[in-house]
Amino acid sequence: MKSFQAFILALALVASVASAGDPPRADYDSIAQRIAMTALGQNVAYDLLRELCTTVGGRVAGSPQAAEAVQWTKRTMERYGFANVHTEPVMVPRWVRGNVEDASYAVEGVPGRKLLEIATLGGSVGTLTGGVSGELVEVRSWEELKAVGPSLKGKIVFYNRPMDRSLLFTGWAYGRAVDQRSRGAIEAAKYGAAAAVVRSMTTRLDNVPHTGAMDYVDTIPKIPGIAVSTNDADQLAALLRAGKRVTLTLTLSCQTLPDVESANVVGDLIGSELPNEIVVIGGHLDSWDKGQGAHDDGAGCIHSIEAIRLLKELGLKPKRTIRAVMFMNEEHGLNGGKAYAERLRPGERHMAAIETDAGGFMPQGFGVSDSSAWVKLGGFASAFRQFGADHIVRGGGGADIGPLTRMGVPSIGLMVDGQRYFDYHHSANDVIENVNERELAYGAACVAILAYIIAQEGL
Amino acid sequence: MKSFQAFILALALVASVASAGDPPRADYDSIAQRIAMTALGQNVAYDLLRELCTTVGGRVAGSPQAAEAVQWTKRTMERYGFANVHTEPVMVPRWVRGNVEDASYAVEGVPGRKLLEIATLGGSVGTLTGGVSGELVEVRSWEELKAVGPSLKGKIVFYNRPMDRSLLFTGWAYGRAVDQRSRGAIEAAKYGAAAAVVRSMTTRLDNVPHTGAMDYVDTIPKIPGIAVSTNDADQLAALLRAGKRVTLTLTLSCQTLPDVESANVVGDLIGSELPNEIVVIGGHLDSWDKGQGAHDDGAGCIHSIEAIRLLKELGLKPKRTIRAVMFMNEEHGLNGGKAYAERLRPGERHMAAIETDAGGFMPQGFGVSDSSAWVKLGGFASAFRQFGADHIVRGGGGADIGPLTRMGVPSIGLMVDGQRYFDYHHSANDVIENVNERELAYGAACVAILAYIIAQEGL
Repeated sequence: MKSFQAFILALALVASVASAGDPPRADYDSIAQRIAMTALGQNVAYDLLRELCTTVGGRVAGSPQAAEAVQWTKRTMERYGFANVHTEPVMVPRWVRGNVEDASYAVEGVPGRKLLEIATLGGSVGTLTGGVSGELVEVRSWEELKAVGPSLKGKIVFYNRPMDRSLLFTGWAYGRAVDQRSRGAIEAAKYGAAAAVVRSMTTRLDNVPHTGAMDYVDTIPKIPGIAVSTNDADQLAALLRAGKRVTLTLTLSCQTLPDVESANVVGDLIGSELPNEIVVIGGHLDSWDKGQGAHDDGAGCIHSIEAIRLLKELGLKPKRTIRAVMFMNEEHGLNGGKAYAERLRPGERHMAAIETDAGGFMPQGFGVSDSSAWVKLGGFASAFRQFGADHIVRGGGGADIGPLTRMGVPSIGLMVDGQRYFDYHHSANDVIENVNERELAYGAACVAILAYIIAQEGL
Repeated sequence: MKSFQAFILALALVASVASAGDPPRADYDSIAQRIAMTALGQNVAYDLLRELCTTVGGRVAGSPQAAEAVQWTKRTMERYGFANVHTEPVMVPRWVRGNVEDASYAVEGVPGRKLLEIATLGGSVGTLTGGVSGELVEVRSWEELKAVGPSLKGKIVFYNRPMDRSLLFTGWAYGRAVDQRSRGAIEAAKYGAAAAVVRSMTTRLDNVPHTGAMDYVDTIPKIPGIAVSTNDADQLAALLRAGKRVTLTLTLSCQTLPDVESANVVGDLIGSELPNEIVVIGGHLDSWDKGQGAHDDGAGCIHSIEAIRLLKELGLKPKRTIRAVMFMNEEHGLNGGKAYAERLRPGERHMAAIETDAGGFMPQGFGVSDSSAWVKLGGFASAFRQFGADHIVRGGGGADIGPLTRMGVPSIGLMVDGQRYFDYHHSANDVIENVNERELAYGAACVAILAYIIAQEGL
């Protein structure tokens, strides 16, 4: 068989499968086009995200801003006529960033001190007794840490393994580097270090430090954890490699207060035929506070709210219920995701969960947690092909819907072009100005289209 | 036959076709990965584009900056060891923007004049006799122009039909709106109008005017053409719709001087087996001058130069010659594209031409001018799938390679995510800061991979 003929035959077979559904696939293609054009033309997603970013701003779990975000979300769902709008209580940790009273370093033999722009890591202890000071020691791997371990008592460990910019996806590079941020203080404290400093999680070279969660374990002393910008990391490393002794001082008033009650926010578009079969769509409402949480994950929240608004706007009445869930505290404990999954919901059956937590960038497709759902959704790829978001790949989901996934609910993550994500992530640059309105609108459209297809076709 | 089985069979057939080549397809997948990882890791493309943007800047055809860009490109190709580096002369028009001595308007009954930030359109005549003044008349369609035509003598026509933001691709919206910019002055002058004002070609609402080429015909008086920002367009329209009489004054010192000699810049990576079979890759070296021509089309030039550098860096020796061509004057006459195609090249045969002129954004795939090339390239899509740029669609090419296409050379355009393109296009925002280094690197990688595959496999 000649290659050309085989190729055409294969295409024809794919096409025949792609049109085997009921209603015909072509309907979903035109519905998808209407949804996308309405999202782009009305531009409501961007207006909503701007409102969340500028009137509420960054919203660390447990903070007054997070509480305000809960109310804003509830009001917004009500404004657009969502059904069953309510909050579901969630206990969350209450970490308060406080102030950086001092972050500066001295270089041996050089007069004066140099101020350092830092981001305290989320969850870090403060420096109650008037500051921490210690000689900076750079390590680029856990092996290096182990090798210098015995000499670290009273010193400050500087984790400086960069995100690998040669990797095809920035998320892969983040995944391979973020252990320094999350476990850095624990591992350094094992050797008696006084604090942990981490190179910011970005492939960019700039002056902006990126925060993010850090962990402690109860059996090991808790030492402060901070991040420095990639430019500062390179500068400090250059000093150290030139044999200079660098002494860092940190005075931080951050602290962890008792847990407080917060909430997930839930609103439905009720199914016309199978209202107790639920398709969850959602993102997380909390964010870090160096910026406005625009991409992470204001965008995902707005995608989900706008998805239901779009379906209502277009008069598309799904057979099954589509439920928007804004999860509280993805960043610092996943409490909202766990609480949502643990809550008893008599009579309800979750058909699928879709999470969007990769930023307000141009969608590329979806990652699907299990094989049969992946195969079924692959048959609907043509609805997304007209704007290039038709990559339906095996493997996906999201942190907030992880507990649902583990309960057997087919889970799906919206995949977006993430090449710029870590330019902004957890930093002062994660602001509305760095979200493109058309890219944001497309994300909302993709969530709306996928949720609608699943609500019609099951999964 | 059950759908699932048909789907799997279809996939298997596609896979079998996709692996029928020689060398096996898997080689191209891993070569593609190496090329992309090298592009991302070394980041040379961004360094080169920054150098072009900041040391040369905007480079209108015929300008000293364009001449400098020719020299910069030649030096850069030589620096990286390209073969046969040379320039090929091209005569180009020489339009000089000059100064906006005055652009302001008066609203009837309101004291004073309001300054207007404008962009003179490329090719516009100036106002030699001390300025043009006239009452502003808004039209949103050619039908409206015709309807008000008889009343336009001495007035200034304000073309205010927005780009349709609901269209899926910004390029479609541009294509439907840009006739106002290109033909606006001609059509207005037919009715005796004194000047033409056009709403900037962008879906964004902001304060930045966008320039671009405008046309004249010899038989109709030449009147000035300018663009105003979308915010100013809305403001002017609101005044007019409120029944206010708005009088605009323009004093412009732009002018067209005699044509000058400029050049295309050409450099080769010579094929090891079929050196006279040529795969052209290229972009256009000229740009508009409100910004730095970073996306349009500095990015395309750098994609093409970096593509050959990457192949050399990795020691990949193509069987056929890959030739980088930087075309001169795409924006204002296509002289470089025509000159390249018309030049006699004894013994050479052009196998394919690839143009990149859609900005330094994340690649999505390629558009291919003819069916058999499209089918053949479809078989290599897997090399691009690992980073989501595997949309190989029918229809494509580019303005500069259009003359080659018409001579029968299979032509291909790099498709990138263009949702942000018209935020920057032809405006002061088309600067290096608005190019993402990873997205730019991916464009270069895609051109390198495709050119290499064609150089090995033919087309």
